[in-house]
Amino acid sequence: MAANRPKGTRDFLPETMAARQQVIQTVRKTFELFGFGELQTPAFERIETLTGKYGDETDKLMFKIIKRGSGSENGECDMALRYDLTVPLARVMAMNPDIRTPFKRYQIQPVWRAERAQRGRFREFYQCDVDIVGATGALAEAECLAVMYRCFVALGLPLVNLHINDRRVLSDLAAIAGAEDTDAELKVLIAIDKLDKIGRQGVTEELIRRGFVQEKIDALFAAIERPEQGDAILTALSTHLTPRGQEGITAIRALVDATVAMGVPAERLVLDPTLARGADYYTGPVFEAQMPALGIGSLGGGGRYDTLIGRFSKQDLPTVGVSIGLERVLVVLEEQGLLPTPGPTAKVLVTLFNENEITTAISTANMLRDAGIATDLYLEPKKLKAQFKYAHARGYPFLIVIGPDEAANNSATLRNLETGEQTTVAIAELAHLINR
Amino acid sequence: MAANRPKGTRDFLPETMAARQQVIQTVRKTFELFGFGELQTPAFERIETLTGKYGDETDKLMFKIIKRGSGSENGECDMALRYDLTVPLARVMAMNPDIRTPFKRYQIQPVWRAERAQRGRFREFYQCDVDIVGATGALAEAECLAVMYRCFVALGLPLVNLHINDRRVLSDLAAIAGAEDTDAELKVLIAIDKLDKIGRQGVTEELIRRGFVQEKIDALFAAIERPEQGDAILTALSTHLTPRGQEGITAIRALVDATVAMGVPAERLVLDPTLARGADYYTGPVFEAQMPALGIGSLGGGGRYDTLIGRFSKQDLPTVGVSIGLERVLVVLEEQGLLPTPGPTAKVLVTLFNENEITTAISTANMLRDAGIATDLYLEPKKLKAQFKYAHARGYPFLIVIGPDEAANNSATLRNLETGEQTTVAIAELAHLINR
Repeated sequence: MAANRPKGTRDFLPETMAARQQVIQTVRKTFELFGFGELQTPAFERIETLTGKYGDETDKLMFKIIKRGSGSENGECDMALRYDLTVPLARVMAMNPDIRTPFKRYQIQPVWRAERAQRGRFREFYQCDVDIVGATGALAEAECLAVMYRCFVALGLPLVNLHINDRRVLSDLAAIAGAEDTDAELKVLIAIDKLDKIGRQGVTEELIRRGFVQEKIDALFAAIERPEQGDAILTALSTHLTPRGQEGITAIRALVDATVAMGVPAERLVLDPTLARGADYYTGPVFEAQMPALGIGSLGGGGRYDTLIGRFSKQDLPTVGVSIGLERVLVVLEEQGLLPTPGPTAKVLVTLFNENEITTAISTANMLRDAGIATDLYLEPKKLKAQFKYAHARGYPFLIVIGPDEAANNSATLRNLETGEQTTVAIAELAHLINR
Repeated sequence: MAANRPKGTRDFLPETMAARQQVIQTVRKTFELFGFGELQTPAFERIETLTGKYGDETDKLMFKIIKRGSGSENGECDMALRYDLTVPLARVMAMNPDIRTPFKRYQIQPVWRAERAQRGRFREFYQCDVDIVGATGALAEAECLAVMYRCFVALGLPLVNLHINDRRVLSDLAAIAGAEDTDAELKVLIAIDKLDKIGRQGVTEELIRRGFVQEKIDALFAAIERPEQGDAILTALSTHLTPRGQEGITAIRALVDATVAMGVPAERLVLDPTLARGADYYTGPVFEAQMPALGIGSLGGGGRYDTLIGRFSKQDLPTVGVSIGLERVLVVLEEQGLLPTPGPTAKVLVTLFNENEITTAISTANMLRDAGIATDLYLEPKKLKAQFKYAHARGYPFLIVIGPDEAANNSATLRNLETGEQTTVAIAELAHLINR
C-alpha cells in the first residue's frame, strides 16, 4: 500500500522539530515573563460551539467529524476541529464562571483549516495566543502588543512593524463607502484590507462588483489615503468620522502611549486606517505584526473583542488578545538565517566493539546518562566502521570505543569526531572529558 | 447558547497545565538522554493509512473527518484522527526512505479514540512513544525498557513492574488452546490478557463462549499456571512450546540480561506468559509497565513489531518501541502525592497606585521582566485592596506599590505577601531583592 500524508499537512523530523521546539520555547518563556498562564483545550469542539462565530465562508473551512454510529450514513457531524484558539477560550470562560478576572492565559496549540493548500499555507498549523479576559482599557491592549513585540525581539526580529487601527474607525469608513448593514460592512473591510496588495484600482473594482457606487468609494479613499504621517493621520482622519469613529481614534492614541511606555519603540508602531483583520468579533483596537520587506503577510495580530465571550456566558467579558502565527514566523526566521541550530540528538556514541565487551559498553552508556550526557549506544555489534559512519552522519561530537585491552584496564578510547583527536582514558573520567 | 465540551475531553487550566508540562518535560528529557530525536506528525491521517492496522473493533473507534464538498452528503470520510503514534511512524518511514537506520525517534502527542467515556479514560489523551527503527536484537528491546523505566524513576515511581512476554510464546499458547488461525489466536490472547482481572473461571467461560473446548483450555492453563518463579517459569513453560515458542523464550532471556545490564533492577522484571498486549502487529518480545497495588492498568508498554512498517514501505524494517500512557501516569502521580507543584504564574505584581504613577509602574514592570522575573502588571487603576486580593488569590510572593512619594524618590514599596513584611527601596534594587 502507498504511504501518503493528507494534503496541506507536514511531518517534522528531528532536525526540523528541534528548531521548532526552541522557537516555541522562546515564545512560551516570553508569555510567562508577563505572567500569562497556560491553557490547553481539546482538538475538537462540539460543532455548535464553532459554527456561526467566524462567518459563513469560514464555516466551510472547518474539518468536521462524522458521528459514530447512527447519523453517520447521511453525513451528520457532531464535532469539528478547532479553527482558532479564541472561540475555545470563550467556551472555557463560560464553563468556568469562577475563574478570577483579569485572567491572563496563553495557549500554544495547532488549529486546522481546510484552505486550499499552497506555498507557506498549511491545513494544520500552530498558533501562539495570549488573551487578557476581563480587562478594559488601553493598558491591557498595550500589554498584548508589548508581549508580542518582545517575542519578536527574543526571536531576533526587532524590526517588525505593529500596525494599529480600531474597529469603530473601520465601521465609520464602511459607512462612508455606503455600507448599510454588518454584511456590507464586512465586504468593505475585506476589500480595504487588500489595499497594499491590489491598490486603489483593485479595491474600487472589488467594491463596484459588490454593488458599491463610485462616488462613495471615492469618499472612502479621500478619508484613508492620507499624505500625513503619525498622529497627524489620526487628526485628519477624525474629521471624516462620527462620534463612534472618534472614540476609536481616542482609543488608538491611548494605546500608542501605553505601548511606548511598555518599551516598544515608537517607530515600530504604524497607524494604519486600512488594517481590517478578518474576524467579525472585534469591537475596539485591532493590530497586526508585519514585515513588509519580506513579502510575507501578517506574522500575528489581534485586537479587542468585548462581546464574543458573552455569546457563551451570561455576562459580557471584555477581552483583548493577540495570536502569533508560528508557521510564518518560522519561514521568516529561516529566510533570515535566524533559525536556531540545535545540536545533534546525542553528544556521544558508545560503540560495541564485540560480543564480549557489550556489558562494559552498556554500563559506560549508563554512567554517562547518569551524568546527564545525552548518550547514544550502538545496538548491534556491527563493524566499527559502520558505527563510526553512523556517529559522523548524526554529527555527534564524540565516540567511545572499548575493546578487550581497554576493558581489562577499566579504560576507553575517546575520539573527538570534530578534531579527530583520540585518547585512552579511565572510564570514570569520560563524563568529565565530554562535558569539558 | 450553552457552552459544552465534547464528551470524554478535558480543558487544562493553568494550575493543572503547569504540572502536566513538567511531567512531559521530564519524559522528554529522559528520551533525549538516550539520544532519541523528536518527531511530530499531523493530527489526522488519510483514512486508508489507519484502517485495517488495528483490527475491525478498533476501526470503529476512530474519529473520521467528513469530506469537504462533494461526498459529504452521504457521509464519505477521507481522513481520521490518529489512533496511536505507531502507524504514523510507519507512514513516515515509508515516505522517507533516506532516513538512516537505526532511527531512534520519540513522539509526544495526543491521540484520539471514540471509546465510551469513563473515569480515567478519555477520548483525547497523550502518548509518549520511543521507537528504534531498523535494529534487531535484544539490545534495542532492552533500551526501550530501560528508557521507559528511567522515565518512571525520574517521575518518582521506581517501583513500577515491567512485565515481559513474547508474541511467539503467545502464538504457541493460543495453538495449545485450539486456535487454528490468526483470528482465533487474537481471541485467545484477548481472553488470557484478562486473567488477572477475571480469573481462570472467567477466561474459561469467555473461551468456551467463543467456541473453544474445555480440554484444550485446560491444556492452556497447565502451561501458563506455573508454581515456578523467575527463570524457572521459562524452563517449565518451554516444555509445552514448539521451536517457534522456544525462540520466544530465548529472546525473553536475552532481553532480561540486557535490561539488567542497562541498570533496571532484576526484581522489577516480571516474566509473565499471560501478558498479551492488544495490538495485532507485535512479532517478538512484548512488555508492559504495571503498578498492581494501585488498581490501575498499564502505565505503558510496547514490544517488537518487525513487519508493520513493511506494510507501507517496500522493505521490512525491524522495529521495537514503547509507549508511556501519560494520563494514567498523571493519575498515579496525583494519587501518590508525587505531582510536581509548579509555582504561581508570576513572582510579583506591580500595582497601579493611581493614574499619575502609571508610567512609573509600567517601566518598573519592564525592568523586572528585563531581569527575567515573571512579572504581572495590574491593568486597571482599581482600588489597591482589589489589587492586593488579586495578587493573594494567585499566590504571587511579592507585590509592589509605587505611590506619588515613592515615585518622586525613584523608590517603591516591596511587600512580601508570604511574611507580610514591607520595605521601601530604590526601584533599581527591586530585581535583586525579588531574586534573593
